[in-house]
Amino acid sequence: MHIELKRGSSTKLYVQIALTLADRIRSGLIEPGARLPSVRKMTTDLGVSLVTVSKAYAELEAIQLITCSQGKGCYVRGAQELEKSEDMERTHRIQAKNESSTPWNWQMALVDYLPRAQLWRHFDASPQVRYELHMSAIQPELLPTREIIDSAYRLSSDLPERMAAYGSFQGDRELRQTFSGHFAERGLRVMPERMLITSGAQQGIDLVARTFVGPGDVVYMEAPSYTGAIDVFTSRGAKIITVPMDDDGMRIDLLTRLCDTYPPKLIYTIPTFHNPTGITMSAKRRAQLLNLAQSYHCLILEDDPFADLYFRDPPPASIKSMDGTGHVIYIKSFSKVLSPGCRVACAVADGSVLTRLVAAKSTADLGSPLLTQKALQSFIQHQYSAYTARLRDELYSRLLAASTVLEEHGSPGMYWTLPDGGLNLWLQLPDGLDMRELHRQSLAAGVSFLPGSACYVGETDTASLRICFTVTNQELLCEGLRVLCRVIKNITPQQGGATADRLPLI
Amino acid sequence: MHIELKRGSSTKLYVQIALTLADRIRSGLIEPGARLPSVRKMTTDLGVSLVTVSKAYAELEAIQLITCSQGKGCYVRGAQELEKSEDMERTHRIQAKNESSTPWNWQMALVDYLPRAQLWRHFDASPQVRYELHMSAIQPELLPTREIIDSAYRLSSDLPERMAAYGSFQGDRELRQTFSGHFAERGLRVMPERMLITSGAQQGIDLVARTFVGPGDVVYMEAPSYTGAIDVFTSRGAKIITVPMDDDGMRIDLLTRLCDTYPPKLIYTIPTFHNPTGITMSAKRRAQLLNLAQSYHCLILEDDPFADLYFRDPPPASIKSMDGTGHVIYIKSFSKVLSPGCRVACAVADGSVLTRLVAAKSTADLGSPLLTQKALQSFIQHQYSAYTARLRDELYSRLLAASTVLEEHGSPGMYWTLPDGGLNLWLQLPDGLDMRELHRQSLAAGVSFLPGSACYVGETDTASLRICFTVTNQELLCEGLRVLCRVIKNITPQQGGATADRLPLI
Repeated sequence: MHIELKRGSSTKLYVQIALTLADRIRSGLIEPGARLPSVRKMTTDLGVSLVTVSKAYAELEAIQLITCSQGKGCYVRGAQELEKSEDMERTHRIQAKNESSTPWNWQMALVDYLPRAQLWRHFDASPQVRYELHMSAIQPELLPTREIIDSAYRLSSDLPERMAAYGSFQGDRELRQTFSGHFAERGLRVMPERMLITSGAQQGIDLVARTFVGPGDVVYMEAPSYTGAIDVFTSRGAKIITVPMDDDGMRIDLLTRLCDTYPPKLIYTIPTFHNPTGITMSAKRRAQLLNLAQSYHCLILEDDPFADLYFRDPPPASIKSMDGTGHVIYIKSFSKVLSPGCRVACAVADGSVLTRLVAAKSTADLGSPLLTQKALQSFIQHQYSAYTARLRDELYSRLLAASTVLEEHGSPGMYWTLPDGGLNLWLQLPDGLDMRELHRQSLAAGVSFLPGSACYVGETDTASLRICFTVTNQELLCEGLRVLCRVIKNITPQQGGATADRLPLI
Repeated sequence: MHIELKRGSSTKLYVQIALTLADRIRSGLIEPGARLPSVRKMTTDLGVSLVTVSKAYAELEAIQLITCSQGKGCYVRGAQELEKSEDMERTHRIQAKNESSTPWNWQMALVDYLPRAQLWRHFDASPQVRYELHMSAIQPELLPTREIIDSAYRLSSDLPERMAAYGSFQGDRELRQTFSGHFAERGLRVMPERMLITSGAQQGIDLVARTFVGPGDVVYMEAPSYTGAIDVFTSRGAKIITVPMDDDGMRIDLLTRLCDTYPPKLIYTIPTFHNPTGITMSAKRRAQLLNLAQSYHCLILEDDPFADLYFRDPPPASIKSMDGTGHVIYIKSFSKVLSPGCRVACAVADGSVLTRLVAAKSTADLGSPLLTQKALQSFIQHQYSAYTARLRDELYSRLLAASTVLEEHGSPGMYWTLPDGGLNLWLQLPDGLDMRELHRQSLAAGVSFLPGSACYVGETDTASLRICFTVTNQELLCEGLRVLCRVIKNITPQQGGATADRLPLI
């Protein structure tokens, strides 16, 4: 097994090894039951001392991620095994036997560049449950899928030859023209030439990272932040520095001070109805942030999936709308609001920053499918405004319903702020709550949520979680929340943090 | 401007600087008319001596990529300027003025990680011409677009809620089930669990690279090879080593000797109807290649877009079909054969190699759109075999027509081999032909082609080009080829290579 070690770093080598392994185990890239390389093998692979590897393994054992026994080696524990540890040895013996007989054991030694995959862990590998509150999405029945399918059919039937050709890497020209009008209504004047269609905001973030962020580059983001963005910047080897938030969004005063010491390459922000907290950055802070970027000649990546989903007043103008110097890359996703199945987002950028993103898009996938682009075009042009107006009312009523349940059934020490828009509600829980146990019991009771730790760079234990109040119907939402509140009540805050991380997870 | 310099490399620093700048200029990332940073500024930025930068700029001037004048600085030349160099000074004065007034001058200093974008340069930024022979694709009128659109509509109308949800990161289960039957007919037995749906083969290659290839990792590939794959591996910082081919494909004997010195991390190959040469690797070599990968514990990336487009006998079985140890990642694209507008390909892999690719896919874009996956499912299940049988006949007759034109109008010194399948024809031209001039004149006469240099890692000047004989109708194809032959005749081989590269482009 290979681990990228930073020698001369202030983080000790054994901690670096333990952190990396912990991350791979938690994200599921090293599976429960897998046998870790022997201490001796690891020593040779990494060119470190026996003591270093032994200390790393001891740390992992102390936080109960692995279990070691003399002569048998170290194995990754699973949720199951934690419960019935008496069976552990037997299980391991079986698994070790199965393992040695598979022909792809050699793959364990294959180095990869995938240090974090929380997105995959929480959203694809998660079990099916009755009350799905972990996924930030809109209940399918509320989406205009029928209209979108019909309009895709109409447009593509009229132009079958065009559908058969490779599209432009930059995205369909007519769709970009449509977006131009759409953005203008929202105070952002932008010509189609300045846009790039991406496969969802996730790909937009990924393209920006692969183009502009490399090993050691400093990326600032809010803490907590969007899991998928953390995965992306981590995989590029960025030095990620997180900035706390208050009710007005990212603390620009703290950011400014940090920038003096660590000049930024890129600042990633979700200024409007922030994911996961729901906080909106004030207009004043937006201007300050742009100013800062101009001083430091760095980029701002403004991720804006929720701006049209406000419950009272429209949010402040986007940072991009104030940007006359090409410092802001703006990404607006239409996946969540219109059609997760179509995966369409639009990035707006200027000058060579845009050119370079288009070139990166060509390397990544030769351009997004034309069919899905055509599918959204007509709807956005003609029906989007009326649709979002209705949607806002519906989503807001769900938020109020969720709030009522929480007020009635929530435990003391739980608190939350109702967001002014978006799909997510961020819950702070009593300090010291065993979040792993809560997650396990909650899933067992049929309720999924996103553990707060997935929204932090170091996956620090944090007594918080995100639920989405728009993904199930209102009845299931309220039932699910009642079940969740009951599970939370039943978990007593732990003493001294027996299973909590001892590792300094940044 | 920042350039990643490898100090202590056997390539001198000034050559590294010149090569990087040449690449950015040729790919269009630094645009014609742009002013390069001053020698003094570059010296500071890169931490090298004045002499080093001066020598690099002198090299670029010698190969006529830039033009420098005392006191005014160095500017990137454009095609236009090469023609009328008397206007050059005036042009520069205007451009310099325009430039200093744009607000995004600061972007010049923004480091990126995009060292090569030939794909973008040749396929998106290329001008519209009457005879488009550069793009490897099938004439839209031959594709079953109507049927695909209809089946997408039927399937999605039946399941609007499903279309509204996020799909699985790994790809639609039913489509993977369909692929399972499809592959079985071709001697590849694979369960849906071992597949990952990607947005075209391009994304598949990109996912493999971002997961398993990092700076300095050794990647082998055929020379020449697919432009898009070269872009991808270059952008990962791989050490790319190319292996010559003969009539049986990649020279495994040479590869074996190279591997002794540079152990491989990954071997990329297009064994069937290779792009651009059309060569098919023999069954014996396929087995040898697999053997080699097993000895070196490295991965093979088998890119297989054309296997169903054979003109006489079906090609040898895929390397993946012989792989019992999980060394091969197999990617089959359905983009070219069925629908470039849908961008669907299927990757097949085993063990943790697959798991890691799925995790990378989640980070890249959360999974491919469901709509396009559904669009292909029914067609592949029911109509694919009959469709490809008809298509093969049609494509073969075009190849024969193209061959007739070339035999009649080709110049002495031009030679080519008719491929047994696929879409591409590789033409070798008389040595010493000025390829840049040919490309320019050919485009001016309305014929596009892919210059051979785009298929080589170092973009070496090479007297070869690729045309696609399936992208226009037969009449345009023959007309276009006649025009191309005439242009080739009119270009006299150059003496001593006045504008040829002097740089040791690997």
